[in-house]
Amino acid sequence: MTLKRKVYLDDSEMPRQWYNLAADLPTPMLPPLGPDGKPIGPEMLAPVFPMNLIEQEVSQQRWIDIPEEILEMLSIWRSTPLVRAYGLEAALKTPARIYYKNESVSPAGSHKPNTAVAQAWYNKQFGIKKITTETGAGQWGSALAYACSLLGLECKVFMVRISFDQKPFRKLLMNTWGATCVASPSNETHAGRDILAKTPHTPGSLGIAISEAIEQAVSDATGQTRYSLGSVLNHVLLHQTIIGLEAKKQLLKFGEKKPDIVIACAGGGSNFAGIAFPFVYDKIHGADIRIIPVEPSSCPTLTRGPFMYDHGDTAKMTPLLPMHTLGHSFIPESIHAGGLRYHGIGPLVSAAYNDKLIDPISIDQLECFEAGLFFTRTEGIIPAPETNHAIAATIREAKRATEEGKEKVILFNFSGHGLMDLVGYDKYLTGKLVKHELPDKELFKYLKELEDYPKPMV
Amino acid sequence: MTLKRKVYLDDSEMPRQWYNLAADLPTPMLPPLGPDGKPIGPEMLAPVFPMNLIEQEVSQQRWIDIPEEILEMLSIWRSTPLVRAYGLEAALKTPARIYYKNESVSPAGSHKPNTAVAQAWYNKQFGIKKITTETGAGQWGSALAYACSLLGLECKVFMVRISFDQKPFRKLLMNTWGATCVASPSNETHAGRDILAKTPHTPGSLGIAISEAIEQAVSDATGQTRYSLGSVLNHVLLHQTIIGLEAKKQLLKFGEKKPDIVIACAGGGSNFAGIAFPFVYDKIHGADIRIIPVEPSSCPTLTRGPFMYDHGDTAKMTPLLPMHTLGHSFIPESIHAGGLRYHGIGPLVSAAYNDKLIDPISIDQLECFEAGLFFTRTEGIIPAPETNHAIAATIREAKRATEEGKEKVILFNFSGHGLMDLVGYDKYLTGKLVKHELPDKELFKYLKELEDYPKPMV
Repeated sequence: MTLKRKVYLDDSEMPRQWYNLAADLPTPMLPPLGPDGKPIGPEMLAPVFPMNLIEQEVSQQRWIDIPEEILEMLSIWRSTPLVRAYGLEAALKTPARIYYKNESVSPAGSHKPNTAVAQAWYNKQFGIKKITTETGAGQWGSALAYACSLLGLECKVFMVRISFDQKPFRKLLMNTWGATCVASPSNETHAGRDILAKTPHTPGSLGIAISEAIEQAVSDATGQTRYSLGSVLNHVLLHQTIIGLEAKKQLLKFGEKKPDIVIACAGGGSNFAGIAFPFVYDKIHGADIRIIPVEPSSCPTLTRGPFMYDHGDTAKMTPLLPMHTLGHSFIPESIHAGGLRYHGIGPLVSAAYNDKLIDPISIDQLECFEAGLFFTRTEGIIPAPETNHAIAATIREAKRATEEGKEKVILFNFSGHGLMDLVGYDKYLTGKLVKHELPDKELFKYLKELEDYPKPMV
Repeated sequence: MTLKRKVYLDDSEMPRQWYNLAADLPTPMLPPLGPDGKPIGPEMLAPVFPMNLIEQEVSQQRWIDIPEEILEMLSIWRSTPLVRAYGLEAALKTPARIYYKNESVSPAGSHKPNTAVAQAWYNKQFGIKKITTETGAGQWGSALAYACSLLGLECKVFMVRISFDQKPFRKLLMNTWGATCVASPSNETHAGRDILAKTPHTPGSLGIAISEAIEQAVSDATGQTRYSLGSVLNHVLLHQTIIGLEAKKQLLKFGEKKPDIVIACAGGGSNFAGIAFPFVYDKIHGADIRIIPVEPSSCPTLTRGPFMYDHGDTAKMTPLLPMHTLGHSFIPESIHAGGLRYHGIGPLVSAAYNDKLIDPISIDQLECFEAGLFFTRTEGIIPAPETNHAIAATIREAKRATEEGKEKVILFNFSGHGLMDLVGYDKYLTGKLVKHELPDKELFKYLKELEDYPKPMV
């Protein structure tokens, strides 16, 4: 064979530390605020998260050791392959060299297990027996169910009602790994019962599901239950940096000194941070790299949302986080990229944007599915609807390279496969998928609620 | 990390030839017979298959070169990892060392693309523009759709009506790769229309779907359409031997000189042959290896079916093949391992059994799903219902090793993932799955039809 198509790392070459961007940001991070508007201390989060993860959440340490036992579990599927997209390049007739990091090879089919396994391990170390969480489209709930299965922890997932009904296979997947999955709002919590009493036929929302999961965690009288979040927070983004750290070593094995462009889709920000932050480090230290988070145009958090203090959930149970947001009451259109339907984006990603280290763009779902189908038929693997956003941006950049006649190196994160999201492709193929641009009127509607909140000083 | 969990091969270490067991069988293979009871010549198959594949079908050459372009395509996902199942070993407290070859990492999620890509390439070389096939559960149809997408060929899949209705996602998967998938019986063929006229509400069968696919291939007046089969035939089994050839090299990298036991599920026989035949070669040359094909107890072709001449399809359109069979009219129970519901088994596998080179067993689906769930919760990956048969046999052998106190090396083929077959797990978890042993009465019922057929002389 003449083509070097993919590169793995040996177990001995695996990264042994996660990278914490907070240590290197030119502008220091702002703290989360409590209900009184004052910075919250770690102890205020103790009923929700185990203290070892809270320590990571507030850490300023640049490199954080990955415990040996977590490395052992990650090695079930890691390293993930870095793949040269020869088929895509040929079809685009581009001089760009396109590489993708294939995170879809994990047992749950996405990057999510990278942090699910780590969080489950830290919870178990802390003596926790049960973890609660919420899930929208189901990727995160599946990943946590998998991780808890590996570690012998109980797992309870509140799944947004509309997804629960539309995607019964996701629930079966969680059941197969031994987790319990209930539709949210449920009758199991005060929050759920209140909402069901008022609106018995509500489709639910991620905000409601978060409220239920947190309530069930903090109200366990034994103190042995905690809550887990699959994105947004610093420690979650930290665990994902293994993606970019691996990719760096793998690019060198392909003979590439550095990428010119790094691309990933962005919802809460953990997938983007995972591949991008190790390259943001290089950029801070002088490397010429354009780093592009890609949002859906129906939920343009970074590209159009202001930087404000806002709650992480609709029910306002979380502390105020400094982030680009569309307002915690904002309900994104029901696009198929359910993992990108979040009103805010992680504070670390927001800070990197404020420091002009990253260049976000937004793309409509029609262009994204067109790109995903093009990838499917040139590279052969079916991407998740979220991943299609990264592919659409990659195709734009590859075409630009053709126009400019430049041999650019493009790296993107193939965050997950679409084998459980084929309904979206069916709608695209049968002409039923529509564009969703967010009108200005909608953009500002929910930001009014934040007017009286403390303002971040940038 | 102290554990060496998985091993890949570099592209430079990939096998460059397929292994043809026909060259080494102690007893020579019997020929297929035509309608007149006489051996058929290659030219009689020419309307159905391209001549380059027919040449492989009848070849007695031991090693057959894999064309460079096929190697390039296979390298999209190959080598597949050979994985040490530490989690399963620990849970079983066995002294056995268990390895599995993970074929689920292919774009279509099973071993089927190994031959789909090869067959599509040979068809294209021969000037063919369109390939027709049938599919039951959908794994084969998906794999051929994928392969045709890579090579720019048209692909038409006749999918058994009951599966078409029960598994709409499989159809969407084929559509996403650009293939057309219709429910069989259809109105597009004489065979389909005849059956619909008599039984408009029939659930269909693999036999009917094969008839439709062959009819549509041979009746294309342009001569540019051929038919493709996903198992049973010699050339299909040949293409799968890359699995075992890779596994041999990978076992050496784990420091294992040879396996003591090789296990794979068996329906038409291509998955089993793929991992097993390279070790059958070693066994013929003196190695002490037990080689176990595992059938469902509801479709015990090798373990209970006699060796006879029989048709490969229900509609008797194919030549007579010398194989262990339950009779071409036999309809297996609707177990979830749809890929193992075939009345016969490949002539090469049948011949290896007659020469006492392999030791088939059959296992009921309840034990198989129990084993699959145990694997899911100890190793983390959800197996296809077919694969569960290999896992159930592996667990039996690992327990035997414990009883005997022996450090055996067990290798099994993880033929595919179960992400699109979760309904079976749901039924198992909710107690709705039942045992299916084939009663003797059923076993002999359909063999009567074969009484007047020519008898193979063994």
